[in-house]
Amino acid sequence: MPLDPKRTVAELKELCALTGDENGAQRVAWTDTWLTAREWFAAKLAGLPVKHHYDTAGNNWVTLPGASEKSLLIGGHLDSVPNGGWLDGSLNVLAGLEILRRIAAEFNGRPPVTVRLIDWADEEGARFGRSLLGSSAFAGTASIAADRVRTDREGVKMEDALRRCGVEMDRFGEATSGQKSAAAYIELHIEQGPVLERMNLPLATVLGTKGVERHSITFHGQEAHSGSTPMNVRRDALAAAAKLALEIRAIAGKHPDAVCTMGSLKTFPGIVTAVVGRCEAALDQRDLDPVVLAQMFREAREASERFAKEERCTVEWSRIWNIEPVAFHPTLLDLCDEAIREVAGKTHRMPSGPLHDAAEVSRAGIPTVMMFVQSVGGISHNKIEDTREEHLEQAVAAFDGLATKAMRFVEASGK
Amino acid sequence: MPLDPKRTVAELKELCALTGDENGAQRVAWTDTWLTAREWFAAKLAGLPVKHHYDTAGNNWVTLPGASEKSLLIGGHLDSVPNGGWLDGSLNVLAGLEILRRIAAEFNGRPPVTVRLIDWADEEGARFGRSLLGSSAFAGTASIAADRVRTDREGVKMEDALRRCGVEMDRFGEATSGQKSAAAYIELHIEQGPVLERMNLPLATVLGTKGVERHSITFHGQEAHSGSTPMNVRRDALAAAAKLALEIRAIAGKHPDAVCTMGSLKTFPGIVTAVVGRCEAALDQRDLDPVVLAQMFREAREASERFAKEERCTVEWSRIWNIEPVAFHPTLLDLCDEAIREVAGKTHRMPSGPLHDAAEVSRAGIPTVMMFVQSVGGISHNKIEDTREEHLEQAVAAFDGLATKAMRFVEASGK
Repeated sequence: MPLDPKRTVAELKELCALTGDENGAQRVAWTDTWLTAREWFAAKLAGLPVKHHYDTAGNNWVTLPGASEKSLLIGGHLDSVPNGGWLDGSLNVLAGLEILRRIAAEFNGRPPVTVRLIDWADEEGARFGRSLLGSSAFAGTASIAADRVRTDREGVKMEDALRRCGVEMDRFGEATSGQKSAAAYIELHIEQGPVLERMNLPLATVLGTKGVERHSITFHGQEAHSGSTPMNVRRDALAAAAKLALEIRAIAGKHPDAVCTMGSLKTFPGIVTAVVGRCEAALDQRDLDPVVLAQMFREAREASERFAKEERCTVEWSRIWNIEPVAFHPTLLDLCDEAIREVAGKTHRMPSGPLHDAAEVSRAGIPTVMMFVQSVGGISHNKIEDTREEHLEQAVAAFDGLATKAMRFVEASGK
Repeated sequence: MPLDPKRTVAELKELCALTGDENGAQRVAWTDTWLTAREWFAAKLAGLPVKHHYDTAGNNWVTLPGASEKSLLIGGHLDSVPNGGWLDGSLNVLAGLEILRRIAAEFNGRPPVTVRLIDWADEEGARFGRSLLGSSAFAGTASIAADRVRTDREGVKMEDALRRCGVEMDRFGEATSGQKSAAAYIELHIEQGPVLERMNLPLATVLGTKGVERHSITFHGQEAHSGSTPMNVRRDALAAAAKLALEIRAIAGKHPDAVCTMGSLKTFPGIVTAVVGRCEAALDQRDLDPVVLAQMFREAREASERFAKEERCTVEWSRIWNIEPVAFHPTLLDLCDEAIREVAGKTHRMPSGPLHDAAEVSRAGIPTVMMFVQSVGGISHNKIEDTREEHLEQAVAAFDGLATKAMRFVEASGK
């Protein structure tokens, strides 16, 4: 059975029709719709010479045993955000399925190395606010004690929702056993940004995932009456925050791929008749270079203190979350470039701003690379998320080429 | 009975103890606590040669009939914001009561002109969002059709809440009858701002109330992923709004008494992982000079359009509310200056940023003036609202002096 990228597109549409509605994809992890998607996927394996099991973190493993136990891992996730798109996550799983079919056929069911397709559990963290759940259990970076007491909007505890799907959080730690014999990991994903479309390129090699510094910043000024407080005596917390909202652009602008985003600003008391006494901002900073990331964080903090002083306010920072940058494997980066060039002629290297399961796998010490395919309008996590079918087919073909090269990499590896 | 300013301070404390709690004054109009305050006040009238009635808008009129029907009106309001201060509104009513006592005693119950003390209903608009309700009914500027369907936080209709207090909104229009024979209006109020404290002066003559332009301004950009969207392709609605938040200070700064306030800024979707796609700001602009007010509005609008363009956003304005500036009566301004000088040696003239019932009375064509007394720290609408007792006593004395001068003004008037 030769590779059939058109089948991948058809299967993506089939999954979309089965598990989406007029508002988009509804495959939120640990819901019935997600289980439906997984059952549909399991049925697709009929007739393939593969073994199939769920690990203790709910990750779905499809194994095509090879002559060697050394394995190439191919990963994706069937779960989506609520009202999500048809490609985020499921493209990777279904492209991986097509590649498994091609490899099984080419090697009469027994390739030189083992190839394993993983549908990671709960990449999005949409229901409990904890993304990369399954892959972090795999990597051994999961924080079970902190996560098990999370609740969804209806108050359902994470632990109970997972148990309903056959996952006991106490046994999360055992999911690291999947690392055994794993010698490489590859992941295909939609870009979810506008870069490739603007460059008029279908595909890119992903250098790694950017590190993130995410902070809550609160400026304290003095609430005062809008009508009776002269301009020159005000301590306007919004003015200090507004200066920072503008300054972060200059801070990011010094570095080619860095981003700084103030995605939320809240004013208190937040009424038209009062000068803002307190202003809470959320700042997200990302770069692939840890030195750049640290510098941007320091500069934003210094700028906030300068602006607070100028406006006779004070400022407090508290970290919401952070993660270090993850750089992918240099040899696999080269192989990914080659695979893209063979299909599309031209390649490009770029970091990923969004996080992916590949970051967790790479943190577990497994050589990793990702391939991006262009997103129409750079839009994702939305029902209008799209990629041109021609580009999807090129992506499956190039990703298949990468799988072949990565199998040789695995074969040659010392693992 | 000579004027006793210390009694006013004692009565203010008595009212505060009766109708406040650990969070401050709770005399919100049309509530049981407000009715309690009004009953307490009515009991204070025992023994005075006055007539007492509520008009059709719920304003409380206490009339000391004089030899002439021509009347001096003295006004204030017993209602407060929730968790309010002990002086805002009630100082005026209780100072007015003390002055009525003094006049009744001095003229053996029959002064040369009629003197009327009014406790205006619902100055604050705290429950239904409609301030100056009673005084605007008096002035004939009330918008009954729009107001009657207002609801409070619990969904109680304004019309029903007023009916419970004996006020039929259908009969609001009849409240204009109070204008008959009214030849002057005086009102004492705490400054609610920091100007007099900074000048080290106890009292000021109020030039008028500033006009207000109040607008909702919405910048529309493009929601985009914080991680995957390069800085140079963003259309960040918060950036445009932040520029305006800073620019309004320059716009106000061209004029000595003007103020511009962005009291509220809301970001959408308002999450740390997304560039702000939509930003809603509320802008309040005030000045006593209508030409200045119009200029500031025009400049803010032009600036917002410039910033929207710079950030590749669009901007929409919608008026929340506006009121024209109200300038008080020149002769009464002079009399107020005189009265202050006689008590405190030095006076100052300043506009009022906050609105007051005096603005509505003045709009009805009745010669009007207000006197301000210093506020500690410029704080109001808060349980820590305060004025030094020494300044309160000076205020009652100076306001009494103004009442005497204003009675002569009424006597001499053609009305």
